[in-house]
This record gives sequence, structure tokens and C-alpha cells, in this order.
Amino acid sequence: MKLYIGNKNYSSWSMRPWVLLRQFGLPFEEVKLRFDSFSADSQFKTRLTGIARAGKVPVLVDDDGFVVWDTLAIAEYLAEKFPALPLWPTDPKQRARARSYCAEMHSGFGALRSHCGMNIEASLPEVGAKVLAEQPGVRADLDRLVELWSEALAARAPGAGPFLFGTFGIVDAYFAPVVARLRSYALPVPPAVQAWADAVWAAPGVTAWVADALAEQDFIAFEEPYRTQR
Amino acid sequence: MKLYIGNKNYSSWSMRPWVLLRQFGLPFEEVKLRFDSFSADSQFKTRLTGIARAGKVPVLVDDDGFVVWDTLAIAEYLAEKFPALPLWPTDPKQRARARSYCAEMHSGFGALRSHCGMNIEASLPEVGAKVLAEQPGVRADLDRLVELWSEALAARAPGAGPFLFGTFGIVDAYFAPVVARLRSYALPVPPAVQAWADAVWAAPGVTAWVADALAEQDFIAFEEPYRTQR
Repeated sequence: MKLYIGNKNYSSWSMRPWVLLRQFGLPFEEVKLRFDSFSADSQFKTRLTGIARAGKVPVLVDDDGFVVWDTLAIAEYLAEKFPALPLWPTDPKQRARARSYCAEMHSGFGALRSHCGMNIEASLPEVGAKVLAEQPGVRADLDRLVELWSEALAARAPGAGPFLFGTFGIVDAYFAPVVARLRSYALPVPPAVQAWADAVWAAPGVTAWVADALAEQDFIAFEEPYRTQR
Repeated sequence: MKLYIGNKNYSSWSMRPWVLLRQFGLPFEEVKLRFDSFSADSQFKTRLTGIARAGKVPVLVDDDGFVVWDTLAIAEYLAEKFPALPLWPTDPKQRARARSYCAEMHSGFGALRSHCGMNIEASLPEVGAKVLAEQPGVRADLDRLVELWSEALAARAPGAGPFLFGTFGIVDAYFAPVVARLRSYALPVPPAVQAWADAVWAAPGVTAWVADALAEQDFIAFEEPYRTQR
């Protein structure tokens, strides 16, 4: 399988399936398309639309050339392709709940996403404090995320693992870029949520992505509303 | 099952699972929460957050009280609950492609959604023409939708039905509110796409929703950037 992704420091959508594949030890080749710009004549868009007309990363191309795009569809494809792996919770109701969380993330939290773009290498606590003070939409997004994570963690069976449904799955990969934002912008969360966030940050698939993101050292000005240089 | 929805004239997300349930003849009770406002102290939000903390319609509550929210998660839940029904295409690759389309719709087409809000009872061709002339983002969204629909229709087996994968499924329900927009705003599409759009508009689940929307006669000013009254 080939996974087309954007810059690892910035591309939160690319991060999700990459982390999932890596965490579960699934063999894949990464193809990075640098974010030169998102205009129609950019190298990024030109190369990408030759692969998937939707023109967004991530895109998964399976060994037979079959193309799946959009993060959630890729996750579902992998879950069907590797049914023995617990990508989703095995219990149907837990699975439905995990899908509800992912679908909510897939279409929501726009204020947090636009005001606190993923930027793994950056430490911007002063930006986080300012955004939280000035943007009620970001506060509402963070409140809902904390509620959602807290609910999932509290619903785990006794003795379950540290992730949202015990073991690491699609839903944790889905929120991994949000964990990166909690860190970069020093957004406050309760201790139980912090313990989960720390477990996500220590998961092998996540540490591998983060190491690559830190090594990238590629400053993309249009992804950086708050910095003028690295 | 109970399905919590918003105003039928305006709530595009509510329309999708309602149409799906109705089209497949699945028994359910509809609970309509009128859009009085989306502020935290609105009746809409107060009633809804008592059912699902995410605070958005649609929400499905199964007979045993189990709650599933967010349109795509509801669709997946129904597909698992009724495996004999072809809610998704039965072929794994067609299913992956259908999911890619739905995931793209779930998170995308923001320009079209914000400039051409669903408004089933309204006929606003002059607004559509103005928006297409002035908003490159809406033109790009429409171009991509036409491309996506054309691709799916062209990939059907010979003799297949009129829907995106032959028979009506989740993916057609997902685009049904966009078909409503094509009509209200008189957005132009090629003949093959128009034939599909007409088939969607004539599908029993869709005609039932549209009839209810037309009977609703409830003018919600904040949903109407272009009209000051019905």
C-alpha cells in the first residue's frame, strides 16, 4: 500500500491513517507531497489530482492500484481489509460510539482547527492562552472534546488499557492530531484526559510520526498564522 | 428507533438518515426539534443536549435507548443493524468508493453549503446565478461534485439502476440535500447528472421528506440569508 500525505508537521488529516498503519505494523510506503501551496497550479495539487481527483491528502493506493481517499473512508477500508485487527472496537455498540466520535471529529471542531492549526514542532502556549481568552468557539470546542474524551474513558471496562476504548484504535488515531494541538498550544485538560493524551503521545505510531515531523524542518508560511520563521 | 431531526425545510444533515430509513421502509419515530436558535439556552439545544451531548441533529436512539449521533455514524450503524439491506454497495471496492464519496461530503463542500443553504420550499435561481458568478469556492465545489457524480455514474455496470451505484443507498441519501440545492438555486449540471438527480428527487424516501418540508411553512430568519419572509 502507498499512503500519500502532506507535511508531517502540519497535515493533521495525513497523520491519522499514517499513525494507524504504523501503530498496527501494517506495511506501507509513504509518499510525501510537500505543501507548496493549495492553488490549482501548485505542485501539491497537480501531483495529487493525478492520483485522486478530490485533491486532498491523505490518499491510500492499495497494491492493485485501487484508490481510497478521505481519512474516514481509509480507516473503514483498512478495518475491512484487516478484520483480525481491532481497528474498531469489536463490540457493535462500542464500535457505533467510536464511529460517532470520529464522525463528529471529521466534520466538527472548526474553531479549534482554524485557530490552533497542528504545528508539532512549535511551542505556542501564549497563542493558546490568547485564543482561549478571545475565541468562545475554541473554548466550546475544547469543552466538548474534554466531555467526549472523559465520557469514553469513564465507560471503559475495569482494567482496560489507557486508550479511549482500552486498546489503541482508529478513534485514538483520529484524535492524535488534537493531542498534538493540546501540547503545542498548552490547552488545559483534566488529569484523566491528560493521562490518555500522554498515552497517545507515547504510542509507537505517534512517536514515529512526531520524530519525522520534528526532522522535517520545513517552514510553510501559510500554515503559520503566528510565526514568521521557524 | 427514534430519529431526532431539525426543521425539514432547512436541516440537510437530518434529511440524510431520515430519507435512508424511509426509503428502506425501516420503522422509526421522528422527533422534530424546531430550530428556534443555536444558542446554548435555546429550546433546540436544551432538548437536544439532554439526548446527545454533541448537540447536533440528527441523533438516532435505538429501541434499547442506545444513542448514535452524527450522520455517517448513524448510516454505518444502520448498515450493521440491517446487514441484509444494501445500504452500502455489497462489493468491497464499490463500498470503499461510496464511503470515500460520503466522507468527502461529510467534511467538505463548505462554500456551497454556506452560500446555498438547503431551503427546499424556496426557488432562488437569481441567488444561484449570483453566487456562481461571484464565489469561486462555490464554482469549485460544484465542479468537484459534478466530477464525482459523473465518475460514479459512468462506473456503473451495464443495465444498473439510476442511482450512484445502481440501487439507492447511503451515498444517494448523502447527496439528496445537495440535489435539493441544485433545484432551489437552479445550479446547472450535465444531462447524465441531471437524470440521477431527478431519480433521487423521485425516490419515495425523498418525496416523503420534501412533502413534509413543504407542509412545514416555518420561516427561520437565521437560515435565510436571501429572504426576509416566506
